[in-house]
Amino acid sequence: MSALQRQGQAAKSAAYILSTAGTAKKNAALEAIAKILTERRQEWLSANREDVAAAESAGMRPALLDRLTLTEERVAEIVEGVRQIIALPDPIGRVDRMETRPNGLIIGKRRVPLGVIAIIFEARPNVTVDAAALCLKSGNVCILRGGKEAIRSNRCAAALMREALASAGLPEDCISLVQDTDRETAHELMHLDGYVDVLIPRGGAGLIRTVAREASVPVIRTGEGICHIYVDNEADLDMAADILYNAKCSRPSVCNAVECVLVQKDVAEGLWQKALPLLDRHHVELRADGEAMKILGDRALPAAESDWDTEYDDYILAVRTVDDLEEAISFINAHNTGHSESIVTANYFKAQRFLDAVDAAAVYVNASTRFTDGGEFGLGAEIGISTQKMHARGPMGLEELTSCKYVVYGEGQVR
Amino acid sequence: MSALQRQGQAAKSAAYILSTAGTAKKNAALEAIAKILTERRQEWLSANREDVAAAESAGMRPALLDRLTLTEERVAEIVEGVRQIIALPDPIGRVDRMETRPNGLIIGKRRVPLGVIAIIFEARPNVTVDAAALCLKSGNVCILRGGKEAIRSNRCAAALMREALASAGLPEDCISLVQDTDRETAHELMHLDGYVDVLIPRGGAGLIRTVAREASVPVIRTGEGICHIYVDNEADLDMAADILYNAKCSRPSVCNAVECVLVQKDVAEGLWQKALPLLDRHHVELRADGEAMKILGDRALPAAESDWDTEYDDYILAVRTVDDLEEAISFINAHNTGHSESIVTANYFKAQRFLDAVDAAAVYVNASTRFTDGGEFGLGAEIGISTQKMHARGPMGLEELTSCKYVVYGEGQVR
Repeated sequence: MSALQRQGQAAKSAAYILSTAGTAKKNAALEAIAKILTERRQEWLSANREDVAAAESAGMRPALLDRLTLTEERVAEIVEGVRQIIALPDPIGRVDRMETRPNGLIIGKRRVPLGVIAIIFEARPNVTVDAAALCLKSGNVCILRGGKEAIRSNRCAAALMREALASAGLPEDCISLVQDTDRETAHELMHLDGYVDVLIPRGGAGLIRTVAREASVPVIRTGEGICHIYVDNEADLDMAADILYNAKCSRPSVCNAVECVLVQKDVAEGLWQKALPLLDRHHVELRADGEAMKILGDRALPAAESDWDTEYDDYILAVRTVDDLEEAISFINAHNTGHSESIVTANYFKAQRFLDAVDAAAVYVNASTRFTDGGEFGLGAEIGISTQKMHARGPMGLEELTSCKYVVYGEGQVR
Repeated sequence: MSALQRQGQAAKSAAYILSTAGTAKKNAALEAIAKILTERRQEWLSANREDVAAAESAGMRPALLDRLTLTEERVAEIVEGVRQIIALPDPIGRVDRMETRPNGLIIGKRRVPLGVIAIIFEARPNVTVDAAALCLKSGNVCILRGGKEAIRSNRCAAALMREALASAGLPEDCISLVQDTDRETAHELMHLDGYVDVLIPRGGAGLIRTVAREASVPVIRTGEGICHIYVDNEADLDMAADILYNAKCSRPSVCNAVECVLVQKDVAEGLWQKALPLLDRHHVELRADGEAMKILGDRALPAAESDWDTEYDDYILAVRTVDDLEEAISFINAHNTGHSESIVTANYFKAQRFLDAVDAAAVYVNASTRFTDGGEFGLGAEIGISTQKMHARGPMGLEELTSCKYVVYGEGQVR
């Protein structure tokens, strides 16, 4: 039995105990985690400084270095995140439906944890605590596998959290970190059938696609976002420009940022008059089809076929001209990743048609795609944004980390 | 592009149309299906006679031949099943939650179809219509791949249903049959990523495990049932014997039949005094551990290790002696398939503990495991019984064939 299999077995055993631990005990463990991460933050920060120093020597890009770095403020934010999760209602044990059948059987559908959730993520030390806390609150054991650049930070955070679990009377194996960060171990984790109930990859498109293709354990795909905005000929063009600017520029690196704007041909000139001054503030690069090039001229580059299927995560925007709503809908359904799509229009029937016909986790009328987020949607917190249809779709909060169990109370009934 | 890929593409196109077809149109198509299967049943029966004749020549076992055979009565039952599905409420379009966020965005969670559902099943012609009708009502396009022994019956039923769809104004590709029944085509269907949203295998354990292992499209595992009954020392032994007899003998070939009884050692003698006369009626073969052999003697065979992990689907029952409830729970969690488990006890605390700690789709107190079924649970119909935790667990009705989509109504909001 490999080290990872032993870790899986320990996780499974812990899952049986955690699944029946009540809310009070889980909250006490979360409070212990918040406390230990605060009191012993110097250990964590010191481990993180080693990670950052090593990454700097290895020539990591500044943006990634920034993501890797912990500070006193960031630790405080992470701890605050744990306390917010304590405050959320516990979905476990709720009975969604209960009825007495004609034969007298009382049948209820009870929320239960999924079991063991494995999470593969990149070099972001905040994800370690955030994901562990969401799993713990929802009664799930987690096996965390972070990026190798953050391994010292993650080892420290995991050790502290395990100490907190033990102090709160829960098995420390409720949270565990995969100690090896090589590819072979990640691959083994994707095939840990029998121990891992669900695997959630959190990170870039490359990571997510690899996991979805290779894993034999059940996977929830999250966070691939080729999002579109369709500017209809009946759009308020000031509103359209504002929404486009916000969806592209407020945080281009995230999955709910827009990557492609579809412009109804009759309003293209009007839209760009209003939108270009905004997009210019961030020197947004436009990659346009031939029709749009006629208007945008030197301001744009000609788009290649691959531009219609690219998640830039950057200040780049693909521009496509369409004749009408139906062409926009067809294009979106052919090229999107099932994340977030928006129409800007004043026409009621077109708005309803767009909501009905576009196939995505979140479909908007007259709003920025940037709102697709657990907090913004009122879920309190999220572990990721599912872009698949099975199990969960859109922002995944605590409820999306649960399954159900039918509980049946009888008095000797036979069939 | 292969024939199956073209079929997948046609299914995907039909899915966009079907997803926004209303309940009235879907019900009209179902009514047209019921009508055409009734009026032209002689074509279907005649195709089926050819299948049965070929299977007889090939030496098919009588039980399987019986499953394959259609009669006037069975056709009437199948048609009645379609009419029952018409009468069920349509889950599509229902908004589960809708709220206005502080920023004025109105966000609703709307039920939508999964999209394209592929179903691989064995030589049971009733499944063809049953599965197609459930998919249609829930707005899903289906791609059916039945066993080769039923190919003539299935081709006829599929052609009739497609004719009915067209007559009701829906694309005939809402229902399609995979024309080749070789293994290569089944394998290709398991890898039809981009076209198939969910694959549901319906059949024996071998089929289900192969599909779960090999498929790259999302799979819902259904119908593997190694079910247990634990007879506690505080059980009413008459009730225990009745439940055991019913769970084993009322229909041993189905997945919710019991395969293993766990007997608390102090009540073993008492239980067998009451249970053996019942089990003897069907000459149930007992395979017992050493402790139970002392009581059962010649009436049982010694169990092998493999007996604790076997779904017999036959008049065979494994018998295991346990010291107490906790040993029973551990054994069940180690050997079950996540289907249905039952405790017989008069003790309140043990009943609650069993419901909490046993990890299965349906957990019973003082009732037969045979009740795990969409009809018995009040879902109206079922496409299978999920034994996994993701997406759906237990009997899957129309609701379990849906996903969701967040619809967001804005007035120009940006973040």
